[in-house]
Amino acid sequence: MYIEGKNAIRQAIIGGETINKIFVDKNYATRKDEIISLASQNKIKIEFLPKVALDKRSKTAHHQGYIAETVDFKYSTVEDILKIAQDKKEKPFIVVLDGIEDPHNFGAIIRSCECAGVHGIIIPKDRACNVNETVIRTSTGAIAEMAIAKVVNLKQAIEQLKKADVWVFAAEINGNDIYRQNLNLPIAIVIGSEGFGIKKSVIACCDGVVTLPLMGKVNSLNASVACGIVVFEALRQRLK
Amino acid sequence: MYIEGKNAIRQAIIGGETINKIFVDKNYATRKDEIISLASQNKIKIEFLPKVALDKRSKTAHHQGYIAETVDFKYSTVEDILKIAQDKKEKPFIVVLDGIEDPHNFGAIIRSCECAGVHGIIIPKDRACNVNETVIRTSTGAIAEMAIAKVVNLKQAIEQLKKADVWVFAAEINGNDIYRQNLNLPIAIVIGSEGFGIKKSVIACCDGVVTLPLMGKVNSLNASVACGIVVFEALRQRLK
Repeated sequence: MYIEGKNAIRQAIIGGETINKIFVDKNYATRKDEIISLASQNKIKIEFLPKVALDKRSKTAHHQGYIAETVDFKYSTVEDILKIAQDKKEKPFIVVLDGIEDPHNFGAIIRSCECAGVHGIIIPKDRACNVNETVIRTSTGAIAEMAIAKVVNLKQAIEQLKKADVWVFAAEINGNDIYRQNLNLPIAIVIGSEGFGIKKSVIACCDGVVTLPLMGKVNSLNASVACGIVVFEALRQRLK
Repeated sequence: MYIEGKNAIRQAIIGGETINKIFVDKNYATRKDEIISLASQNKIKIEFLPKVALDKRSKTAHHQGYIAETVDFKYSTVEDILKIAQDKKEKPFIVVLDGIEDPHNFGAIIRSCECAGVHGIIIPKDRACNVNETVIRTSTGAIAEMAIAKVVNLKQAIEQLKKADVWVFAAEINGNDIYRQNLNLPIAIVIGSEGFGIKKSVIACCDGVVTLPLMGKVNSLNASVACGIVVFEALRQRLK
């Protein structure tokens, strides 16, 4: 689907619509305008095109130099995810992503979570990768089986999980040995972003921090690999 | 470093030199010649350039339309990897990759292996991703700490490991539950390629097959994530 015009696109971004890409008149490439900065804040790709190319794509003829391409993906809510666990008569098994930015990582995380039997993934509305076409492609079909909730405030979502008797663990350095932490509980595991890990304020909301042993000198795990290892450790404990 | 001319580049490819990319005169783009097909077999990137651009890069002025850009990386041998374990007084912990093709996956695997304390990685010379600049970049420094052996024949390398009292396990579907297999042994774990898994003839050489539990419907793990989960399960058992 396409959304045309500056105001409509601004509203769509602010309202959390899943936008894959925004085509912008290339004459606007040098001016730092609101749509371009909103797009950059929300990790939405911009493609600059000549005005004639926008005219050709336009269905309203009122694009004002901006056409957004949206993705047909329906987000779930935190309640939906808790209900999925309840319906399966399983202890909730949830992953919270604090600002994953790379769509390939996000897609790979969806794959791993689907394999591990995770009930749902919670992502923040701002400054994180949304479900876009790269995510869908990289998830190799797993996205169709995974509930993803996009929330305005990650800390509030964590508090909501805790109220529902879910234990929330941050996967970060300097925590408790993950292999000694009982994960055979109703749990949510928070995974940090590629560059910055989990925000301190988010860690402060969690019930604990769990840490993978690192035996090397460089000791830098890819975010999607780290998530895979952590969810499968939880699965191992839950299968025992 | 650059290698120029058809014969020199053919020898370099056949000899297993690590080539990052081959620049080819774009007039040759349509003809299916030997260098282009050798490059494709060995997953080496081709970039077609106008003749003048090749002339500019050339240092010999005898490029004949072909300039190869090599990577300064020194491969180890299987013996080197066994010696690393011996010197550390640790049971060998080795990963064998049967035809990983994507340089991002290969780089992520090097990262995970470095984190898990793997002593070395064995890759086949043909039809697999070599160490190139994308691999080096994706490994985020881990490549400098990891011994990588490139072997002509993967099955012979596996036989060599078995003679050195290393247990070789294929990570594949339909094997034994990995959580019930003792991995606190001198081990090598074989990981299959993205599209085709491990070759049957390679599985036949292994001492056993270990399998991750998969709880979803799609059940498709990314190769580098699968490798990360498996090496960390081995690490978990070795740390107990």
